[in-house]
Amino acid sequence: MALTFDIEARSATSNARTGRVTTAHGSFETPAFMPVGTRASVKGVFPSQVADTGAEIILANTYHLLLRPGHELVARRGGLHPFMNWNGPILTDSGGYQVYSMGDLNEVDEDGVVFKSIIDGSKVRLTPERSMEVQHALGADIIMAFDDCPPSVDPRTFNETRKRLTAQRSKRDRDAYDHAERLDLANERTIRWLERCAEAHASSGRDEIQSLFGIVQGGTDFEKRAWSAERVCSVELPGYAIGGVAVGEGFEEIVSVVRHTAPLLPVEKPRYLMGVGYERDLVAAVRAGCDMFDCVLPTRNGRNANAFTPTGQIKLRNAGFAEDDGPIDPECDCLACSGGGAGPGPARGPFSRAYIRHLVMAGEMLGPMLVSIHNLRHFQRLMLDIRQTIRDDAWSAFARRWPVAAEGIDDPDQQ
Amino acid sequence: MALTFDIEARSATSNARTGRVTTAHGSFETPAFMPVGTRASVKGVFPSQVADTGAEIILANTYHLLLRPGHELVARRGGLHPFMNWNGPILTDSGGYQVYSMGDLNEVDEDGVVFKSIIDGSKVRLTPERSMEVQHALGADIIMAFDDCPPSVDPRTFNETRKRLTAQRSKRDRDAYDHAERLDLANERTIRWLERCAEAHASSGRDEIQSLFGIVQGGTDFEKRAWSAERVCSVELPGYAIGGVAVGEGFEEIVSVVRHTAPLLPVEKPRYLMGVGYERDLVAAVRAGCDMFDCVLPTRNGRNANAFTPTGQIKLRNAGFAEDDGPIDPECDCLACSGGGAGPGPARGPFSRAYIRHLVMAGEMLGPMLVSIHNLRHFQRLMLDIRQTIRDDAWSAFARRWPVAAEGIDDPDQQ
Repeated sequence: MALTFDIEARSATSNARTGRVTTAHGSFETPAFMPVGTRASVKGVFPSQVADTGAEIILANTYHLLLRPGHELVARRGGLHPFMNWNGPILTDSGGYQVYSMGDLNEVDEDGVVFKSIIDGSKVRLTPERSMEVQHALGADIIMAFDDCPPSVDPRTFNETRKRLTAQRSKRDRDAYDHAERLDLANERTIRWLERCAEAHASSGRDEIQSLFGIVQGGTDFEKRAWSAERVCSVELPGYAIGGVAVGEGFEEIVSVVRHTAPLLPVEKPRYLMGVGYERDLVAAVRAGCDMFDCVLPTRNGRNANAFTPTGQIKLRNAGFAEDDGPIDPECDCLACSGGGAGPGPARGPFSRAYIRHLVMAGEMLGPMLVSIHNLRHFQRLMLDIRQTIRDDAWSAFARRWPVAAEGIDDPDQQ
Repeated sequence: MALTFDIEARSATSNARTGRVTTAHGSFETPAFMPVGTRASVKGVFPSQVADTGAEIILANTYHLLLRPGHELVARRGGLHPFMNWNGPILTDSGGYQVYSMGDLNEVDEDGVVFKSIIDGSKVRLTPERSMEVQHALGADIIMAFDDCPPSVDPRTFNETRKRLTAQRSKRDRDAYDHAERLDLANERTIRWLERCAEAHASSGRDEIQSLFGIVQGGTDFEKRAWSAERVCSVELPGYAIGGVAVGEGFEEIVSVVRHTAPLLPVEKPRYLMGVGYERDLVAAVRAGCDMFDCVLPTRNGRNANAFTPTGQIKLRNAGFAEDDGPIDPECDCLACSGGGAGPGPARGPFSRAYIRHLVMAGEMLGPMLVSIHNLRHFQRLMLDIRQTIRDDAWSAFARRWPVAAEGIDDPDQQ
């Protein structure tokens, strides 16, 4: 087996559990939050600093690496691990989501997808077999099935709508478009593509060192989710993921879909909720029985100088922080908040909000670097506390320490 | 005394010497190379990493910090040292050079300079007294006199010419303009302004913890340099600098001016050659008796993916490095070249040229971060070797280890 999952403790009052996933490149504790290193780099953070935040596994994106520098070039370097100097576990996505979210969807048919390169406009074909081939070349410990992610809007107006939605950063207005038929097709096609992925993976021999996870789709429809979960889990795999969540829905909808779907996945295998999310989402999903998460929020918001704290995000650009000598979060032990100064003098204090604001306003790289590290540590500290809270089943105390996540607990006083 | 300078070893075959400068925030070995932290940050590098490269003193720019975040805001934070989390020695320039190099020179008269802010276009007045006031607020261990840096071209066409020259990145065509008169005035005014700086500094009481250095000007004219050196050094100060060098001249001209000027400065005090330079410039200046240097080259070229090596710079964007698994410089022991990977796996190898090229081509911050650290370490390794070479007086062996700097030694086989 390329992957083992040992459950270590279970919450008595929820479906949450702690455990350890072991891969060819070491193990990681669950529930786990995976920082995103889209192009083989967690943006603005050294690999050693990523590890210092407590992250034990990171994610990289097949779509981006296929385009640049190319999976074959990475393979000739010995794969992603030596290439990016990260010797711990790595997970790659399949490219399915990026084909949907980033490029103009030129053609999708039963065989696969042809998309336009975001770099040079050239046409690139991605199929289940091709996604496996690329992910084998990249060499991640966990690889994902290639799924059919339909646009959530009418394809004829997709580009315009996507542009508008991106500009607004608002939810996608699903209800404005009749795309039920396309969703059904995608849901069924995702199963056929999973079977092709599984066959390509098994016949490659790479399944001895890389582990394929299947992805359950179905949107916000409980019946479709149940149908997808049953079909996906009928393919014997070392882990399963919930996809198509947090693509525009609100908190309540995310939670209801995850609570419905997670228990439909095998209890003895790791459950990965893709692309999620905010603190309350993570806590709710952990309590629903999910074990793995990834999200770009820590580094994306870090680059925008938005810092996470247990009571919510703060915008360090705000003039109110110009003379604030405190650290981002006095409870935090990251490099930015707890020190990291240099030189022979006596004190090595934290970096102040005033200094970080100055860096950001002046366009200095060190600003995003500091906030990104802080944000990554924020999420790892959250996961650390979640794992301890599962062992103790002490959710109300957890909710007091993390007000920003309290909403993720249906009834913190249940115990 | 706010500053002491102890000479420890002297080269028998040149004017080079090693020593140690001690300030209120600790000491640094000389000859010393100071990384530039223009806006209170060495671009893209954590303070602790700057210290890890071997740098013991850094430079910050008065002009930029006066404009943003403002010297008074920095003073309310306790000065630059706690503000930027650098507890070792700091040197600030006076703003004179930036007024000349960066802004539209609106007005310069005997009292001082009025320049337009590069941030909001507002008019800001800088005088010798004001420069002292700003540098007192910033609190650096070594502060510089405010000098009159005349434009090297006709003021009427200054903006156009500057734009053209900047675009070409070529030498300034000094000879095309008759500005001898302006140069004479500037040279004389610099002395009057130095006297005003010294008086303002002494009467502030800040001279007990901050040390003022005077600046010798005079362009490439030996007589003017001699006149300036005599007048500047008649003001009793803990150190002296050579300014107006490497503002467009070639290597030969730089060296001849430095060889002429350095011996005119007191032998028992630190000599600081401002804004220099490349490796061969540094070696030549050390052999002429200079002790301190600063330059933006390591970080500026680092951001452009140009990496320094003992045999010359390499451009990591070049396609030839796309599959190069070696480190930037196999002899280098910096974070980029010697390791810094993370995770539980066995190897923590160097970052390859192939990986760094990928990061640069993809626009990932980590690329500039790695090359900047490497370049900073390159210059510190050079200074380390220069100091040892002075002790051993073994210049020909040094020239073999650093081909890129060999030209800085007039006769490497002299011993």
